[in-house]
Formats: sequence, C-alpha cells, structure tokens
Amino acid sequence: MPETARYEPTERTVPTRSRDRAAYDRDLVHSILDEGYVCHLGFVRDGAPVVLPTLYGRVGERLYIHGSTGSRPLRMAGEQDPGLAVCLTVTHVDGLVLARSAFHHSINYRSVVVHGTAHQVVDPDERRMALDSLVDHVVPGRSLDSRPADAKELAATAVLRLDLEEVSAKVRTGGPNDEPEDLSLPYWTGVVPLTRGYGTPIAAGDLDPAVALPGYLAEL
Amino acid sequence: MPETARYEPTERTVPTRSRDRAAYDRDLVHSILDEGYVCHLGFVRDGAPVVLPTLYGRVGERLYIHGSTGSRPLRMAGEQDPGLAVCLTVTHVDGLVLARSAFHHSINYRSVVVHGTAHQVVDPDERRMALDSLVDHVVPGRSLDSRPADAKELAATAVLRLDLEEVSAKVRTGGPNDEPEDLSLPYWTGVVPLTRGYGTPIAAGDLDPAVALPGYLAEL
Repeated sequence: MPETARYEPTERTVPTRSRDRAAYDRDLVHSILDEGYVCHLGFVRDGAPVVLPTLYGRVGERLYIHGSTGSRPLRMAGEQDPGLAVCLTVTHVDGLVLARSAFHHSINYRSVVVHGTAHQVVDPDERRMALDSLVDHVVPGRSLDSRPADAKELAATAVLRLDLEEVSAKVRTGGPNDEPEDLSLPYWTGVVPLTRGYGTPIAAGDLDPAVALPGYLAEL
Repeated sequence: MPETARYEPTERTVPTRSRDRAAYDRDLVHSILDEGYVCHLGFVRDGAPVVLPTLYGRVGERLYIHGSTGSRPLRMAGEQDPGLAVCLTVTHVDGLVLARSAFHHSINYRSVVVHGTAHQVVDPDERRMALDSLVDHVVPGRSLDSRPADAKELAATAVLRLDLEEVSAKVRTGGPNDEPEDLSLPYWTGVVPLTRGYGTPIAAGDLDPAVALPGYLAEL
C-alpha cells in the first residue's frame, strides 16, 4: 500500500485545544523525531500511568526502543498479548514566549505524540537493525564504527517496535498573542530563543591517543 | 511535620534496573525540576496511556500545571474523585556517551519522575500563586512584570496541583563503561557534551521601542 504524505487523524490525535497547531505531515513528524535524543514513553502499570525517558531509533515508519530484558515496560510488552499499549512523546523547546499578559505566556515548541501497541521484536535480523538504529540515532553512522552486540549482549536486550500509525505533531512558532487592549502596556514582549549545541568531545581516559576523533564527531 | 532531606522510596520509585543511578535527595530533585521548561505528563484515558508535554511551576513541595478548562487532563482531574492519577517526568539530556561497543552506548541525563494524584485547585489565592509560579518558571521574576490574569482569564484556566511525595531522580554522568576486553578496539570513545543556551531576545513587532529589555532577560 503506497504511503500517503499524512497520517490519518484519529479521535486521539485531534487535540481538544489549539487544533490549528496540530499537524499530520509525515516529513514533519520524522524531522521532529530524528532531532530528539530521548522520548518519554508512557504505559499503564497496575492501572496507573508511568512515564519514563528512554532512547529510541527510527527506521521508516517504525520506532524502536530497547532495554534490559528485566526492565518493566520491556518485560510487560513481552508478557502481554498483543503487546503493551504505549504513548511515546518527543518534544523540543524552541523559545520562551513572553506576552504582556501573564495569561498569554507560552513556549515555542515542536512535539510528536505516537499512540499504539509496542511489540517485542524477536526476528534476529530486525533486532540487529533496530539496535543499529538506536546507536545511529545518537550519532548517525556510529553503528559502523563500534563493536556490534555479541550473543550475550543480544540475549540481555529486549527490543520493542512501535509502528507510526496513530501519530500527530504539534508546533507553536512566532511571537506572543496579546489582547488588543494590552498592546500599550509597558512590559517588554517577544521571544527568547533557546539554542542547543555540542561541546567539545571529551575522550575517555583510557582511549589510545593514536585513535583520532572521527569525522562524524568533528562535524557536530 | 519537619521535612526530611530525602523523599521516601516506594515500590514505584525504586527502579528495577540501574538502581545506583536513582536518587531521592530533595535538593537534587528541585534543581532538576527548576531547570526544565516542559514536563511530560502521563495519565490514563479509556485504559490507554497519554503523554503530553506541558509547562509547570514549583512552589516548595508542590507542582502546578495549568490549561484550558476544556483540555482533557484538566477536565478529567476535575471530574474524577479524588483526582487524576498522573506521572510527571522531567528530563535533561547532558551528553552523548560513545562506547567502543554498541551495547554500552548511552546518554548522560538527569531526570525526575513524580507519581501521584493531581487535584484541581479551587482556592482563589492558591490559584493565583500557582499561575505566578508557572510564569516565573519560564523566566524568574516575570510574573511581577506582566499583567496578571483578569477574572475572565482566571475562569477559563484550570490549575492542577501535584504534591511532591512519591518522587525519584535518576542521573547518569561520566564516560562509557566498556568491557575490559574491548579496551584495545580502534574506536574513538568518550562523551559529546550537549549544551543549551539562549539566543538574542526578539522583540515583538508591535513593542513600543521605548520599552527597554528588562534586566532579567539581559542576564540570561
């Protein structure tokens, strides 16, 4: 089935508020996901919500997360049929929006929310591809420049897959939306951008000095 | 009752993995919370988890979140007795940890997970204090330099309170933990720090040029 350019909105992915900020464009969703380092994974345990930060990787329309075979969500996904109901959210904070009124203060942000069922990946080839995607999500290309997992490490690692099907993005950009009657109030108003960058890489103390900083890190 | 320096660990706040990274120190928890801009709020809707990014404020051992009276979690907290079961998580990503083995790749991070029940705040004084804390969380001191919410805005805003009782922090710092037999592998290994900063404030187009940039922004 050929992919459409947009995810189909569902009752869960249409927000009750600020609908104009919601978006379903695949390219936008992918770009937000690819820029993040951790997602916040929500699941239900004993009837109560749990939200944990965790790494993730993306391969096309599939997200992968991983963890020890002993960790709670990974274990729960393996024990439950048809898997573990999850909500996976990634958010970037881009700026502080200072309005003249306290009420209209806000944040510029880009977020993606994925609803679905996470399944344990058991196929060995898919597991390897998923683990590569997790390493390459941290630094693109890194999976080819490190030792792959051995049999013992693979056995200790559970991999979950969450398909990108019920997905939405939400984006706020631009300046404050003050009320017309507030425009003459004597308060500074505008946006303070937030920036993110990389510091100088810190080599491990036991690194052989003959090993040079790889190009993919020098470029960061 | 005098506060202790630590939150009491519970079954939910003791992780199944990496217990040495878990911490219950109040000062550490507060510092992680105060440095964040958005939290990820998890709740259960129709049996399924939902995780949404949202602003928050802290006053002592209370967290406040707010939203439109029409938004889902705010409405749910008001309709349910004794409130809405939530899990509120704040995460900072501090560095990329590149090990020689794919398996030991990681992230340096600091996170706080709060479990509890969110209650609607109805007391007018506490509501005002909560809304001030939300604005001051974005920029300290800003609530005194903006127009406070009027009666109509207050009526449109729901405020939830979540007490800091069942709380844990998790922190990873330092370099990679490679296996001894991997130390001679020819891969660069170390940490790439992630930095966060502020860009130059962008005044709104309709700002009166006579209004100077306030000191609390110039200091950022």
